[in-house]
Amino acid sequence: MKPPTHLLDRIQELLRRAQRILLITHIAPDGDAIGSTLGLRSLLLRQGKNVTCACEDAIPPYFRYLPGSETFVQTGDGSYDLVISLDCSDRQRMGNIYNPALHTLPLLNIDHHVTNTHFGQVNWVDPDSVATCQIVLTLAESLNWPLSRQTATCLLTGLVTDTRAFRTANVTLETMQAAVRLMEAGAPLTEITRQTLDRRSLDTIYLWGQAFERIQCEGGILWTEVTQDMRRRRSVREEASVGLSSFLAGVREAQVVVVFTERDDGTVDVSMRAAPGLDVAQVALRLGGGGHPQAAGCTLDGNLKEAKTRVLSELRRSLDL
Amino acid sequence: MKPPTHLLDRIQELLRRAQRILLITHIAPDGDAIGSTLGLRSLLLRQGKNVTCACEDAIPPYFRYLPGSETFVQTGDGSYDLVISLDCSDRQRMGNIYNPALHTLPLLNIDHHVTNTHFGQVNWVDPDSVATCQIVLTLAESLNWPLSRQTATCLLTGLVTDTRAFRTANVTLETMQAAVRLMEAGAPLTEITRQTLDRRSLDTIYLWGQAFERIQCEGGILWTEVTQDMRRRRSVREEASVGLSSFLAGVREAQVVVVFTERDDGTVDVSMRAAPGLDVAQVALRLGGGGHPQAAGCTLDGNLKEAKTRVLSELRRSLDL
Repeated sequence: MKPPTHLLDRIQELLRRAQRILLITHIAPDGDAIGSTLGLRSLLLRQGKNVTCACEDAIPPYFRYLPGSETFVQTGDGSYDLVISLDCSDRQRMGNIYNPALHTLPLLNIDHHVTNTHFGQVNWVDPDSVATCQIVLTLAESLNWPLSRQTATCLLTGLVTDTRAFRTANVTLETMQAAVRLMEAGAPLTEITRQTLDRRSLDTIYLWGQAFERIQCEGGILWTEVTQDMRRRRSVREEASVGLSSFLAGVREAQVVVVFTERDDGTVDVSMRAAPGLDVAQVALRLGGGGHPQAAGCTLDGNLKEAKTRVLSELRRSLDL
Repeated sequence: MKPPTHLLDRIQELLRRAQRILLITHIAPDGDAIGSTLGLRSLLLRQGKNVTCACEDAIPPYFRYLPGSETFVQTGDGSYDLVISLDCSDRQRMGNIYNPALHTLPLLNIDHHVTNTHFGQVNWVDPDSVATCQIVLTLAESLNWPLSRQTATCLLTGLVTDTRAFRTANVTLETMQAAVRLMEAGAPLTEITRQTLDRRSLDTIYLWGQAFERIQCEGGILWTEVTQDMRRRRSVREEASVGLSSFLAGVREAQVVVVFTERDDGTVDVSMRAAPGLDVAQVALRLGGGGHPQAAGCTLDGNLKEAKTRVLSELRRSLDL
């Protein structure tokens, strides 16, 4: 959606005054986090700005095709005059990058999560955009900035990954038209889908097979688990669970899907999916997490069994399942 | 692609003369088969034609959202003056519907399979179209026929199912623009993806878990099997294998994926997927099947073990893997 004129004016003013800009995206970065950050970087470089991209976690190797992905730093140290957070629903999602020295700088918060806490001095939060990349595209088009092939490749990446190739319930005609404009600017859709979607190691597939066996389904709630032990046996990392909940969301018997993953640090990652009409973002929020009505998550302390009991009872209470 | 003028002229002439048209699509119909047939039906009804849709096999229940899906007949009997085959790569794909009484009628063959045998009196075969639905859209637009919401819904279904939501290697800017035009005409993308993609029963997911465990991978070829016994234990039908080979095509270690499914009649269904640059359609063709370079298949007599030996050695020889 095009932003109100006064918001666009404030953003333009912030950008006009800034010369050294720090872009921060969220920990455990996904395609939309990395794509929106690199897309905005590429746009700002064209405007003659000095731009640094930062993320507390390393960029996964399969995003190396994105121009500029090698420039990410894992620190907030340095001399800046503006901070822009991308795809972060709250301040904590920026991790350690947003260090105290940065707190005195103006902060522009660009995000599409409905659970965003509006933590910036200026906040462009648009839950109608399927991805933060779509907001960055709207920004570029609102300011009549030209779209290079590089920028378009970054921005289409977020559209593709956040919608799993245009199949989430929030995809509209506007989304598809945005994708077409990005492809007209040269973004290679096939390469993007091939690099980012369904690319898994054989060991991950074996792990998924085990997770499928452990599926339980009761009263419309389907859940399963990925334990440290399962991962160790297959030598796969925590990230092997990514995509599992989205995949299981297609199971006919399920209204809500939950995947519990034991992380290396002993916490439990909880990934939830809901059929249209239900809202797991509110449940995630109450458990200290966030997200979208149809896709949300949180991280819980305590063991797997406790996490399951807590999440399942919260879901049953909240969603009346 | 827009057809050459002389081809369009011949098709227009065939359609102008015809009043009672039989549309036939292939056995084991998929989204593109059903969508292209019902889309053309809806277009021809608007032109005042009498139209019957036929398919030897029943229409799967999850395609019931398609307007006209309840009108399919499973016989070729009746009085017609034109036959149009849709999405059939050869005459046999029409099954028993194409009975001897129909052989004297003009036959228009509309298809996008590169292995099409050009078996019609008039053949519009365009392998550059991602789906037969895209050819029907081109036909409608070339003849300036209006696109109703019904027609658009049918045609977008084939685009979505044959590309698994725009993620196959043959999707281009033209494909996405076609999708946008169909959505502008009212086709509900979200409903279509929700009804047709990733909708599986819990028992199917359990079966997939077992098939994952049985995966073998050697020299870039990944294969697995779905036996009658596995299906029986989970009470799932042959169709439970649909999508398995496409899903496994994302495995990083695999250049080629083969899924062998024991059918109820004792034959073995062979579904193959290949990375861009390889061509499994030629292999399928030699084994009596057909398809596209990146996605092809065949049905073999004999037991599972024999089928595996034959297909794997054929693949190794042909693809130099």
